[in-house]
Amino acid sequence: MRDKDKEYLQNFGANLKKIREDKGFTQAQLAIDSDLDISYISRIENGRISPSLIYITHIADALGVDMKQLISFNK
Amino acid sequence: MRDKDKEYLQNFGANLKKIREDKGFTQAQLAIDSDLDISYISRIENGRISPSLIYITHIADALGVDMKQLISFNK
Repeated sequence: MRDKDKEYLQNFGANLKKIREDKGFTQAQLAIDSDLDISYISRIENGRISPSLIYITHIADALGVDMKQLISFNK
Repeated sequence: MRDKDKEYLQNFGANLKKIREDKGFTQAQLAIDSDLDISYISRIENGRISPSLIYITHIADALGVDMKQLISFNK
């Protein structure tokens, strides 16, 4: 993986964590509402994995935000 | 996979194909420029797989478009 990729995933994870907390969700609640495993949510937020596109739509739906919000952050 | 998910991936693939063609790229050229396999590009465009987020950034960089363009289409 390119350094640029690692940085992007860390930024994506930090942005997701911020939005989740702003919306008052715990990781556990988000995992339930998006049909995903809590460890998957945790690894995304820590920038340790690159999530699958379709799971990002599950997360966006659960948080009630547009996909664009999840990918809009300063790179 | 939910029906809604299949529909989303088909729309995502069709949108990618349109942008790629508008930009005058062949699948082969996009595969080279994004460090991805041509079969991966083809399966994305046919809505048969859910691409990894980081590979979407490679595709966006190769096509010279913003990520938002790749995920902005009528669901």
